[in-house]
Amino acid sequence: MAPRIVRKKTGNFLEDFKPGQVFRHKGGKTVTEGLFALFTDFSMATNPLSKNARYARAHGYRDIVCPPGLVMVTAFSQTVEDISENARANLEYIDMRYGAPVYIGDTIEVETRILGVRPSSSRPNLGIVHVQSTARKNLGADDEAVVMTWQRKVQVYKKDDAITVTGFDIEPEKVDCPLWLPAYDPKTDYASLEHLSSRDSYFEDLEPGTRIEHSRGRTVTEEHIQLTGILDNTSQVHCNQQMIDWNPKQYVGGKLIIFGGLPFILCLGLSGPDVGDNALGDVVYKTGRHTAPLFAGDTVFAATEILEKHDYPERPDLGLVETRLFGHKFEPDPGATNEEAPEGWKKTPIFELDRQIAVKRRSHYGG
Amino acid sequence: MAPRIVRKKTGNFLEDFKPGQVFRHKGGKTVTEGLFALFTDFSMATNPLSKNARYARAHGYRDIVCPPGLVMVTAFSQTVEDISENARANLEYIDMRYGAPVYIGDTIEVETRILGVRPSSSRPNLGIVHVQSTARKNLGADDEAVVMTWQRKVQVYKKDDAITVTGFDIEPEKVDCPLWLPAYDPKTDYASLEHLSSRDSYFEDLEPGTRIEHSRGRTVTEEHIQLTGILDNTSQVHCNQQMIDWNPKQYVGGKLIIFGGLPFILCLGLSGPDVGDNALGDVVYKTGRHTAPLFAGDTVFAATEILEKHDYPERPDLGLVETRLFGHKFEPDPGATNEEAPEGWKKTPIFELDRQIAVKRRSHYGG
Amino acid sequence: MAPRIVRKKTGNFLEDFKPGQVFRHKGGKTVTEGLFALFTDFSMATNPLSKNARYARAHGYRDIVCPPGLVMVTAFSQTVEDISENARANLEYIDMRYGAPVYIGDTIEVETRILGVRPSSSRPNLGIVHVQSTARKNLGADDEAVVMTWQRKVQVYKKDDAITVTGFDIEPEKVDCPLWLPAYDPKTDYASLEHLSSRDSYFEDLEPGTRIEHSRGRTVTEEHIQLTGILDNTSQVHCNQQMIDWNPKQYVGGKLIIFGGLPFILCLGLSGPDVGDNALGDVVYKTGRHTAPLFAGDTVFAATEILEKHDYPERPDLGLVETRLFGHKFEPDPGATNEEAPEGWKKTPIFELDRQIAVKRRSHYGG
Repeated sequence: MAPRIVRKKTGNFLEDFKPGQVFRHKGGKTVTEGLFALFTDFSMATNPLSKNARYARAHGYRDIVCPPGLVMVTAFSQTVEDISENARANLEYIDMRYGAPVYIGDTIEVETRILGVRPSSSRPNLGIVHVQSTARKNLGADDEAVVMTWQRKVQVYKKDDAITVTGFDIEPEKVDCPLWLPAYDPKTDYASLEHLSSRDSYFEDLEPGTRIEHSRGRTVTEEHIQLTGILDNTSQVHCNQQMIDWNPKQYVGGKLIIFGGLPFILCLGLSGPDVGDNALGDVVYKTGRHTAPLFAGDTVFAATEILEKHDYPERPDLGLVETRLFGHKFEPDPGATNEEAPEGWKKTPIFELDRQIAVKRRSHYGG
Repeated sequence: MAPRIVRKKTGNFLEDFKPGQVFRHKGGKTVTEGLFALFTDFSMATNPLSKNARYARAHGYRDIVCPPGLVMVTAFSQTVEDISENARANLEYIDMRYGAPVYIGDTIEVETRILGVRPSSSRPNLGIVHVQSTARKNLGADDEAVVMTWQRKVQVYKKDDAITVTGFDIEPEKVDCPLWLPAYDPKTDYASLEHLSSRDSYFEDLEPGTRIEHSRGRTVTEEHIQLTGILDNTSQVHCNQQMIDWNPKQYVGGKLIIFGGLPFILCLGLSGPDVGDNALGDVVYKTGRHTAPLFAGDTVFAATEILEKHDYPERPDLGLVETRLFGHKFEPDPGATNEEAPEGWKKTPIFELDRQIAVKRRSHYGG
Repeated sequence: MAPRIVRKKTGNFLEDFKPGQVFRHKGGKTVTEGLFALFTDFSMATNPLSKNARYARAHGYRDIVCPPGLVMVTAFSQTVEDISENARANLEYIDMRYGAPVYIGDTIEVETRILGVRPSSSRPNLGIVHVQSTARKNLGADDEAVVMTWQRKVQVYKKDDAITVTGFDIEPEKVDCPLWLPAYDPKTDYASLEHLSSRDSYFEDLEPGTRIEHSRGRTVTEEHIQLTGILDNTSQVHCNQQMIDWNPKQYVGGKLIIFGGLPFILCLGLSGPDVGDNALGDVVYKTGRHTAPLFAGDTVFAATEILEKHDYPERPDLGLVETRLFGHKFEPDPGATNEEAPEGWKKTPIFELDRQIAVKRRSHYGG
């Protein structure tokens, strides 16, 4: 007898989300040295806190510490199956805050609350879902710490285009997510470590009103398929070429699109030598968005605008720097002119992130 | 003086194998966190026992545990140099059984006994070799445990086509390979962990007579060359494009063929959310085979038929489920019609595995 | 107000280097299991000292030990930003010596002294820089050990072609870098481990006057971009396709060139079964060079000439073997004839390394 066929549809669709609904995401993820090496180093991250255990320990971390980008892609990916496996595009990051540091061996678990749904007026087959996610790590028997919390807005397909979806919008919860930073220890000889990070990216060096064009570029290859899988990001638009080939018009660019977390962390990495090397931590990304898709073969470049500087409360050794991180690529465009590229190439912005960082002062850490 | 040239031929050929001959394979392999992350996550494995250390420990494992697919490709690859470096294709897996769990840091060593040789009647340049392999891990000074044992049949080339090879066939050895599973502990609050695995894949949910078409697909890229190398699988048909280019007719498809272990573990992974998430262990693969080759660019899909269910002896918390795992891909074929694909695409079965799993009962682990 | 644009140029140019100048390189790198697995296994390294913890410990190492190739690419890459981020090609390795073993968890930091600059007479936009680099690992509070020291010559571009650069040439420093090898312990049953390495690569087997053509080849894919990034090698000629596309004539082959460290360690790996499996350590590479560029899609092959054998002072269990390691690839060339390839293919040497290894004697380690 022929078996009964069961076709499970994974993930949720626009019509599935309810106000205040909470998803405790499956899986969870223990950070291995394999994950750490792939993502910290792939992304050209340069802050020695994530490279050099001797340096990290001297600064008061227990060991090399996951760079913010790795925490972000790991935590974010845990939410994909429930929230965005059936998404068209991720639209916006909001109030993305960091808390406890994440070390190799820590296990991250994530939950997400549904804040809003807004059906599209122009595209009856999709709408926008607004969510709030929080990632925690286990601290032993019954204790845990928030490592990250954020909101995002994402464009999600309906399962049944004919269904009418009623929009809603509720307030986010207040999530306590204090950034843990190691204390300044006057007995530590920080100056003896100074050569390990860049010498011109202390708080004193970052000048509001400047835009630093970071010098390096990085071409992303088909590696993105594997990298995305390794993050447990199950969205099919990143890894299922067959699905795209059968219906290219349905998908952005008619190609496998690169998971936004990859240009996100690559831009963070490319900015490293100029603005990240002496950051003790990333505090908050108030808002961020992907402004164009990235495909295999594209080369990612980045720039940072220094917006404002402030004292860090009760930490005379640190300062807070408000920056805006930009990612871009270049595309052939006959007739285009651009001071950064040969004729016939246009500069396409791909990413933008309002990024607040806690930066060491040369007065306290320099030689 | 010109040096004397030595050309070593690595691996054995059809004429080299003798009845009962035992190969203790070179190398051995210590499972690092790098190997663990690459293969556990590449393959879209979803069982939290291999993802989440908190979950694995609560279930009685010492730490996150290698998924069956990782144990299989690691152990199998150790046998390639001696048995199948000069193979055309791997034909069949037989009685593939799991024993002790494998953790990060364990060292796996493998030996193989030659059970049979059967020269091909139609192709004078090759024949079938039947072998029995056993993988052990070291448990300290003088102790060890069997982690896996299996037979396979593989098509191997002759070194010298003119040699007449006499076939033989001997009995397999009895290999003791008891599956270790953690005990059920009534004091553990399993229900508090339930959200971390899928909610509809308990023993009670798996219905004989159904076929579950798993929803995800995964495109395999040229990454396969590196992945295969990282497993110490030295077969040249997976990684030596030059050899293929010089003599494409000699090789399946005239292209680098993807190591069968990769679709094997990918099919296991793709089936995860529907049938693997609540398996406490894979018990035995009674038989399995690759039915078509896989090449870079192909997208792998999987389905599982639930065949039978049984009680698990002396474990009221578990049940045994007999399943058949299928892998397939789609190929362009003008005029083909298929309910799962647009017109002009045929569905090509690539893999089949009779798979018995030990699955948790909701009555004992559910909330 | 539009921000002030800052364009930082990373790395140094020919006109920047001064006699005796010392760079203490940024970053440093803690060897993770991720890095270890990727590079040890990617490169087809076969020595069980780097594969099998049981074997390594029985030989007196504390754990699986980084193969020489991994130490080399890790240490070398640390020097790229300061020395060769703006290089055209790496020309020559000189007196590359190994010292203390490197284990997972060790942190490597590197410094480089500038020994010479020689402007090119034929190409006014570049010249050769001669440097001496030393890599150390931290051994706790205030102690450290030299793990590697080497000189290299590299072709570096000028920032300003119009500047006249005056050449110089100073003596290298004497760097103490004693090779640490585990002692021979007569109480260890080495013979019981013999099957784990190749049986015909003991000191007694390696015959001066022979050239061993290693049987395997390995195609390098676009994976090289990620692998190079993971090493923190920031040179743009390996990873920035956009830069190449805009100005292909400026770059070797008009394509992304593969970081020389990759064919370097791949040739070491390919030679493993025949000459490396029973080496207890690599002692020194007196000289080495890349003789042709490698690009994605090329297949690497290797051969080893055995030049001389000597006793190892005060170690009757070991011998010193002087070898020359060759790498090559094949390129289409109408009309070319070659005994190793079909008509129409020429053999292109890509790499050459004078390599001295400390090899176990069968008399002491064999069964």
